Amino acid sequence: MSDFMDLFGRRQSCRKFADRPVEHEKLARCIEAACLSPSGCNAQPWSFVVVENPQTVAEVAVHAQQLNFNKFLSKSKAFIVVLEEHAVLAPAVRRILDSQYFAKGDLGAATFAICLAAEAQGLGSCIIGIYDREKIAEILGIPIEKQFGALIAIGYPANPKVRKKIRKPLEETARYA
Amino acid sequence: MSDFMDLFGRRQSCRKFADRPVEHEKLARCIEAACLSPSGCNAQPWSFVVVENPQTVAEVAVHAQQLNFNKFLSKSKAFIVVLEEHAVLAPAVRRILDSQYFAKGDLGAATFAICLAAEAQGLGSCIIGIYDREKIAEILGIPIEKQFGALIAIGYPANPKVRKKIRKPLEETARYA
Repeated sequence: MSDFMDLFGRRQSCRKFADRPVEHEKLARCIEAACLSPSGCNAQPWSFVVVENPQTVAEVAVHAQQLNFNKFLSKSKAFIVVLEEHAVLAPAVRRILDSQYFAKGDLGAATFAICLAAEAQGLGSCIIGIYDREKIAEILGIPIEKQFGALIAIGYPANPKVRKKIRKPLEETARYA
Repeated sequence: MSDFMDLFGRRQSCRKFADRPVEHEKLARCIEAACLSPSGCNAQPWSFVVVENPQTVAEVAVHAQQLNFNKFLSKSKAFIVVLEEHAVLAPAVRRILDSQYFAKGDLGAATFAICLAAEAQGLGSCIIGIYDREKIAEILGIPIEKQFGALIAIGYPANPKVRKKIRKPLEETARYA
């Protein structure tokens, strides 16, 4: 358990990447981890595009930097695009809920799995929330109507020091009944 | 890394709980793990109600069993309700996106963190998707308008055997660019 809490504590948004390529095998491991995530009715409403070709990474990076504080993305060595797919729910559930009812949460879990698996392999990651979805879809041959769950930047951290995590006090966040 | 992939592989929906109480400390650890999850702009749009009092657990279980295949919940020893809270985003992001834009994904990550932390402590968990939200809110004194991210059942597994995970083939799920 302590190993696990340690991993959770070390996982942080990495905004400074080292000039060191990321091994294909490590990215594949991140995808394996993502696919082991839970999903509503095990629908697995996700697919992934792993961007690792240096030229394609550079092109995606240009359109990932929509905000000033995302300039660091020009040093990203890989990206993983998490895409939302149609979810086939169990018949009893389908009668009550829309097919995509659980999808956003499921994609959140899979995205987090990628970040944890990256950390466990010594890689840094940063989930990017704002980017030019249409341009990135065009570069990667993703159908224009496809919803993105997340765009994750990956690379070796230039500074592996773990920052203090800023979180709301536990007393405010949880209560026991 | 292998420890981590092992934990990911062992985590599964537990639908048969042992008649053994769950320690308060282990539930508190699950909440600690959840709070270390990433969230858009670090807004942490979550709060948690941990249901551990046996009588309250039994009351919640009644209203958690909306589907035939959820009858097993009568044996659940604890529940964690993941609630959606208002997210305060960074000013530059707030100008572009609705406050709750990232919330569902963030709650998905926190929910998964709880399941992983449970597994790491020898506990089983099951994310429940369909339940009587209003009745459970009433029992727990949760404001009726509050959105639930998830309801998670927790207990020691009656059968700790790891089932084979059924997943879409990796070749269909991921591609490399």
